[in-house]
Amino acid sequence: MPSANVYNVTEWPVGNPLEDIGAVINSIIADIRRRQATADVNDAGKPGAVIYIPPGDFRLRTQVRIDISFLRIFGSGHGFTSSSIRFNTPANELQQWHEVWPGGSRVLVDLPAGIEKTDADRAAFLVERSGSPRISSVEFADFCIDGMHFSSETDDAENSYRNGKTGIHIASANDSFRITGMGIVYLEHGIVSHHADAATIDNNFIAECGSCVEFRGMGQASKVSNNLIGAGYHGYSIYAENFGGLLVAGNNVFPRGRSSIEFSGVARSSISGNRFHSFYPGMLVFSGSCSENLVSSNHFFRDREPWAPMLRYDNGLDDRFGLLHLNGNGNSVIANHISESIDVRFVKPTGEKPVIIRIASGSGNYVANNHIVATTEAVRSSDAPNSAAFATQVDAILATKNLTSLDVVAVLVDAQSSQNIVLDSGSDAQVLLDRAANAFRATPVIGQSEALGRN
Amino acid sequence: MPSANVYNVTEWPVGNPLEDIGAVINSIIADIRRRQATADVNDAGKPGAVIYIPPGDFRLRTQVRIDISFLRIFGSGHGFTSSSIRFNTPANELQQWHEVWPGGSRVLVDLPAGIEKTDADRAAFLVERSGSPRISSVEFADFCIDGMHFSSETDDAENSYRNGKTGIHIASANDSFRITGMGIVYLEHGIVSHHADAATIDNNFIAECGSCVEFRGMGQASKVSNNLIGAGYHGYSIYAENFGGLLVAGNNVFPRGRSSIEFSGVARSSISGNRFHSFYPGMLVFSGSCSENLVSSNHFFRDREPWAPMLRYDNGLDDRFGLLHLNGNGNSVIANHISESIDVRFVKPTGEKPVIIRIASGSGNYVANNHIVATTEAVRSSDAPNSAAFATQVDAILATKNLTSLDVVAVLVDAQSSQNIVLDSGSDAQVLLDRAANAFRATPVIGQSEALGRN
Amino acid sequence: MPSANVYNVTEWPVGNPLEDIGAVINSIIADIRRRQATADVNDAGKPGAVIYIPPGDFRLRTQVRIDISFLRIFGSGHGFTSSSIRFNTPANELQQWHEVWPGGSRVLVDLPAGIEKTDADRAAFLVERSGSPRISSVEFADFCIDGMHFSSETDDAENSYRNGKTGIHIASANDSFRITGMGIVYLEHGIVSHHADAATIDNNFIAECGSCVEFRGMGQASKVSNNLIGAGYHGYSIYAENFGGLLVAGNNVFPRGRSSIEFSGVARSSISGNRFHSFYPGMLVFSGSCSENLVSSNHFFRDREPWAPMLRYDNGLDDRFGLLHLNGNGNSVIANHISESIDVRFVKPTGEKPVIIRIASGSGNYVANNHIVATTEAVRSSDAPNSAAFATQVDAILATKNLTSLDVVAVLVDAQSSQNIVLDSGSDAQVLLDRAANAFRATPVIGQSEALGRN
Repeated sequence: MPSANVYNVTEWPVGNPLEDIGAVINSIIADIRRRQATADVNDAGKPGAVIYIPPGDFRLRTQVRIDISFLRIFGSGHGFTSSSIRFNTPANELQQWHEVWPGGSRVLVDLPAGIEKTDADRAAFLVERSGSPRISSVEFADFCIDGMHFSSETDDAENSYRNGKTGIHIASANDSFRITGMGIVYLEHGIVSHHADAATIDNNFIAECGSCVEFRGMGQASKVSNNLIGAGYHGYSIYAENFGGLLVAGNNVFPRGRSSIEFSGVARSSISGNRFHSFYPGMLVFSGSCSENLVSSNHFFRDREPWAPMLRYDNGLDDRFGLLHLNGNGNSVIANHISESIDVRFVKPTGEKPVIIRIASGSGNYVANNHIVATTEAVRSSDAPNSAAFATQVDAILATKNLTSLDVVAVLVDAQSSQNIVLDSGSDAQVLLDRAANAFRATPVIGQSEALGRN
Repeated sequence: MPSANVYNVTEWPVGNPLEDIGAVINSIIADIRRRQATADVNDAGKPGAVIYIPPGDFRLRTQVRIDISFLRIFGSGHGFTSSSIRFNTPANELQQWHEVWPGGSRVLVDLPAGIEKTDADRAAFLVERSGSPRISSVEFADFCIDGMHFSSETDDAENSYRNGKTGIHIASANDSFRITGMGIVYLEHGIVSHHADAATIDNNFIAECGSCVEFRGMGQASKVSNNLIGAGYHGYSIYAENFGGLLVAGNNVFPRGRSSIEFSGVARSSISGNRFHSFYPGMLVFSGSCSENLVSSNHFFRDREPWAPMLRYDNGLDDRFGLLHLNGNGNSVIANHISESIDVRFVKPTGEKPVIIRIASGSGNYVANNHIVATTEAVRSSDAPNSAAFATQVDAILATKNLTSLDVVAVLVDAQSSQNIVLDSGSDAQVLLDRAANAFRATPVIGQSEALGRN
Repeated sequence: MPSANVYNVTEWPVGNPLEDIGAVINSIIADIRRRQATADVNDAGKPGAVIYIPPGDFRLRTQVRIDISFLRIFGSGHGFTSSSIRFNTPANELQQWHEVWPGGSRVLVDLPAGIEKTDADRAAFLVERSGSPRISSVEFADFCIDGMHFSSETDDAENSYRNGKTGIHIASANDSFRITGMGIVYLEHGIVSHHADAATIDNNFIAECGSCVEFRGMGQASKVSNNLIGAGYHGYSIYAENFGGLLVAGNNVFPRGRSSIEFSGVARSSISGNRFHSFYPGMLVFSGSCSENLVSSNHFFRDREPWAPMLRYDNGLDDRFGLLHLNGNGNSVIANHISESIDVRFVKPTGEKPVIIRIASGSGNYVANNHIVATTEAVRSSDAPNSAAFATQVDAILATKNLTSLDVVAVLVDAQSSQNIVLDSGSDAQVLLDRAANAFRATPVIGQSEALGRN
């Protein structure tokens, strides 16, 4: 019976999903595999199955291991709430709180610890299969994966973004996966996918994780779109390596994130129509050699950390690194808005001008029609109470009035880079490059219009 | 049992969902609250629940009041159909119609009237909670909220976009809400959210409402994306006030809408990759002071109302107001296409040139690489029969042949605004600004290429 | 009872969904129609219904005919896997494969053949209704439509992209349809929609089809967004004719596709924030006369077919045709990145320079700030084994190092076209147009910055 392919973790006779949803799902997967064993005759396939996680708290003490295609695991609620605010709220206040944990269809990741374990071992959901074809069309939708606590051995464990836990780890080459509508919180790694082809990561809420989305190994033709994402101060909100044809579009990426997005060895990919907010330099990084990528129509905004518990942290980079730091050839940075708001007192090193777009190496890059707005920041209290974190942050973002202009290097092309074209992205004084080795047209300056507009 | 967190309005023993789905849902919420009262021990949370509305007509006579996090209400069909066309179709024709009402999982908003009521009182779904933390992760998905009738005391009530009804009203600070896949129709206000953080409004159909999406109070880091939206002639398709980090992307916004999108006091936000269609000036408005926002890669199209029943209405603005009307500092308008098609006879005031982009106040704005196409409109019948409304509208949009050019002011910078940069967005004759107080480079004109291309 | 509007194909008493899901769904639709016959009194409507297809293999031997609004058909898995790789894998290897067919909630299209049949006859799902109003809000979500085999009478049938099958064929004027989360594979036509208004085609996986998405007849105000799409060498990935206000955004469109996107007689529409990859010239085509459309913030990449089984095919166009080939007036091509990587040996005709952007006819088009990167391709083996197809393709995309520049015509404006404006999209030598009949500003060339930056 086809309806036999519909499972509910709370109705499965083996195991107790409240105590260990991992064991229950593995038992279900074993059942699917057993029942599908004789298929593939007469055009009939192995259709996989769907596993439902209703709203509820489901502890995961056994890793889920997925090695069948066409498996869909879904819930009825992404269940995000801020654990970061909660863990920075005094206990006496917490007693008055309506609730303190994420909710929805919530998987509590509680795997046994062990320093000998690999990253793959420490994932709540591990997808791995050898042989052919690549595992296809596994889907995760509309549930919550909660790491519950950060737990490094520092004096500030819950703000460490470290606990050795991963939400979804895809270890082998995969095709046409979909991760949609998920809530992923308080994990050191949210989603890690190796060798992805035609993956979709869309409309998720992945925040308060060390790193959020990581494409590793190599991959092609995938999409990270329409997500709300924000990593910790030593991780990536979005990371991809050795990838071709990745489309990162329509995401709202908020702090912190060592970088909002980093590409390493990525080619012919696109970062378009996103909104990025960061507290540190290096919010977009092209490392290794990244070539022929497009960065367009994005809004970048960097200001200074406004929230007391996190003031002690940053990503270690100084303001010469560049908000956008590029290595590689033939990239395009077109039609972006970039705002930086920081008081000159907080610029590092002291006395330097912050760099906005830096081409550190490579050639043939095209930087055109970017609007850079740099201001000193608004006066504000650095010790805003936690309970007002939301209003404090909004105020910080909205504080655009009566600011004075901050002197920056709009575009810096390092000496080892050449053959780049920089157009209308900064005045003559704001763009530092070797004019003999690159091409440059300055943004016209106020009052010089007549001469320019003569045609 | 976790599955106890799954509810179906038609299976709940209290109340009759056909007669009053509001009372049924409130009874379910009370049950969830009662069952969750003892939670929050041993890492266990209050997971919320999911409430299902199957396809059907469900009258709502009692307001739904939501004060628990992690509640998901979902249906199986957004059920939009045009009530506007239906109410402008003669009764004798309607008798032949297959159906006259929206459908799907349809909530018929039928709250008792009362002039003493507040906006919050008049909402079908009211979300409100005091104390901490902010209410989180409430989700509305895949059902229809139908206001059924407009009902002002005019001679043309069903075209008034007035009935005092709101679909979803979020009254208190909220985090990580999701509204997806909904159909919202014939309400004076579709969605109103106060103090939103990390909200998602994605892939909905919100049309034939007075206003469609309104972010009020303040808010940050949210997303209005991939929706089909169209408001009435006195409302907003999308509105936000005092917001930071809003991303409006990938929406198809159709008429009417007093404005397609209005920001008031919004900063560091982005409007990117949308398609906007309007019948009036002021399709995009930045009011108050809006700063450091990006408007890029959008398609704007304004023509004249082609549909007989609505010819008597407009938003009261004349063509000097600007299709895009900006107040504020440091905004970017880059790489947009803007089409205006209107016969010179219909321009107001008579004899004036329509203004396309107007910077009314503020400084430091950057307007670059916008392509403005202005034409007189195609000859057409203004009394197209209702039944051909679709074909009439398509014809109007497609009517681009044999048009003559319309003389417009491509960019107007008011005298009280200065320090703006305007590049390649209009010829020398089409851009009106104080060249001593701003920077300007004209779009090259035909036949002057040689001199420009000499490098 | 409202829950009577919820159907499951495996629980319906009529027919066997494993043998003919089409007959089962038609029987369900007849039931819905019968039960709704007396509705439309007292504000009560005809709410439609929802039909669930669980994961499983469901053969479709009878066409599904939909003539009621508000019908939602959904499954629990899009189930894509590559049939193209499978059909190009030796039988002895296939014996070791884990699975060879698509999965999820899978409909196997197995309609009786017949050369007298029309396109509509050959669709798995046919939507058609006469009279008023237009059929509304039919939804297809989260299931798989699999054509199973291509079957032309060539020696290479499974690579022919021909089998006369269509997945979803919408024959009559329609409003507010939604097609989301689907997997559509190995059909000659994936989705064909005539006279669409306010349609949403979002987040689907439509690949290895002859053509993927076709809007035919006329239409307006619709959206093709966030899809993974790739057509065959004689079809379209996305096609629209006589359309106004179409938004194509956020798609990742991969090869092959005779064209990635073709518009015919389309006006005031937008192609924004997509990633396109193609193996042939003509990846974007505006045919007939297309006017006032926006093409912005897209990434275009064309290289040469890297996969042995497909090397014998192309779309028949030579490199003079243009990667982007435009006919029409007032269009905008702004802020795109365009990469072409092909060895000079493979350029057709031999000795010609490939054309990147070609304006073949029309006037008033605006081409600005496009970055074109043209290189000879990396050395590679043209006979990569099938089993390494993924790695081969990724390598091909990533192969950006040590390439030499390829001489191209960046922009060609044909003699019959005039009054166009071309800015910063190619050097003086790379742009071919009548400088007296058009306006042109060359991208500055390396080393000439000083003179340009003097302001």
